[in-house]
Amino acid sequence: MSKTTISAALIVIGDEILSGRTQDANLSYLAKWLNNCGVVLVEARVVLDDEATIISTVNELRAKHTYVFTTGGIGPTHDDITSLSIAKAFDVPLVEDAEARELMLSHNPNDVTPERMKMAQVPQGARLIKNSLSKAPGFQIENVFVMAGIPAIMQVMLDDLDGHIEGAGKVLSKTINAFVGESLLAADLGIVQNNFPDTAIGSYPFYRDGVHGAALVVRAVDEGQINAAIDEIKIRLKKRNYRMEDVE
Amino acid sequence: MSKTTISAALIVIGDEILSGRTQDANLSYLAKWLNNCGVVLVEARVVLDDEATIISTVNELRAKHTYVFTTGGIGPTHDDITSLSIAKAFDVPLVEDAEARELMLSHNPNDVTPERMKMAQVPQGARLIKNSLSKAPGFQIENVFVMAGIPAIMQVMLDDLDGHIEGAGKVLSKTINAFVGESLLAADLGIVQNNFPDTAIGSYPFYRDGVHGAALVVRAVDEGQINAAIDEIKIRLKKRNYRMEDVE
Repeated sequence: MSKTTISAALIVIGDEILSGRTQDANLSYLAKWLNNCGVVLVEARVVLDDEATIISTVNELRAKHTYVFTTGGIGPTHDDITSLSIAKAFDVPLVEDAEARELMLSHNPNDVTPERMKMAQVPQGARLIKNSLSKAPGFQIENVFVMAGIPAIMQVMLDDLDGHIEGAGKVLSKTINAFVGESLLAADLGIVQNNFPDTAIGSYPFYRDGVHGAALVVRAVDEGQINAAIDEIKIRLKKRNYRMEDVE
Repeated sequence: MSKTTISAALIVIGDEILSGRTQDANLSYLAKWLNNCGVVLVEARVVLDDEATIISTVNELRAKHTYVFTTGGIGPTHDDITSLSIAKAFDVPLVEDAEARELMLSHNPNDVTPERMKMAQVPQGARLIKNSLSKAPGFQIENVFVMAGIPAIMQVMLDDLDGHIEGAGKVLSKTINAFVGESLLAADLGIVQNNFPDTAIGSYPFYRDGVHGAALVVRAVDEGQINAAIDEIKIRLKKRNYRMEDVE
């Protein structure tokens, strides 16, 4: 979509997502947050709580993308193996971070079980990502950002990353709804996409109140390109007498 | 978790998921459906509507897993490139399927635009996956099952796969809630996990009505193993006077 794309990948870590027990909510939140930074989320992987898998996935993706984010597996229980796996991926020891320990003690001085204190351990050389909710931090090591799986905590960790992620142009979008079956729009959309190669035009069918339609989304870094593509779509659909509405 | 695991992977195809516009709902539905078949979903990938990416991802995962499922990108518009990409992954031509064409015409004889009829094309040698909702089919080629991205359509396509997926033992689970901070449970859970290596014990923290707790989920193929692990967890937590409740 843009020659200056800065790319990111997300690794969602957790048996509970792949068993269907828990519905992931972090992907879409992170995607929008990255859009606002001018970073494009280009792939996501959902993996089990399995050390070898986490290590190989992190090492593959951190070489491929500007930024890698992980969610999940940094809690206190036996199945929380993300921090140790990432330390192994970077071939550094997992060490207790003095600041992390202090933050956690300030939040709850009475729970100093070794299991809770496991959450103060980070790979050597990592920088803490603060958690204003429950204090147990995430961490950044090189281009990898390790965050909690619980959405509310993941979101406050992202707040702490404000200013730490450098993006390119922010990806903007405009949407119009067309109230006609998607296959009747397809030829025109294909032509407009060809005419505006620096945009990404998506078509997302819906069925609402007995009417078939499609949301047509034009995304690009350059607002002028978006407007021009939207204008051409509108002219084409108007010629065919299709009903439309602006969405945003 | 089991030596006779039959594994599956899901590829979620679509820019709209990675832009945050659309929240995927197919992963968790498929995961539960596969659990009922005795198949374990061991990884999922979310990828852009990009031919090279789809081809390499399909070819990597179909060699690695018993079954691969894809969702998304089989509609009529220019960004729907899944069928062609999968034909290329298998190095076969994309051809119109006579039965698919007939099904679609029976549903709507008036829309025979080339764009709509694109949905009657499948890789040569593929078997149709029926879509009782809007007729445009998915398809199976070897161990790869290609389905629509719209959840309601994806779900009726899965209905059509009943009996086509051969699993091992069905993965069962039992859950108890413990009303205490997760870190105070961690040591006991680690011991029980060690004592029952054929189970997978997960701990999922929650915060409800001002009380911290964790859902403890024991999963295994063998119900006896689950019950024995749950019993040991209960004995251990009771000794510590933690409040518990059975969930299922």
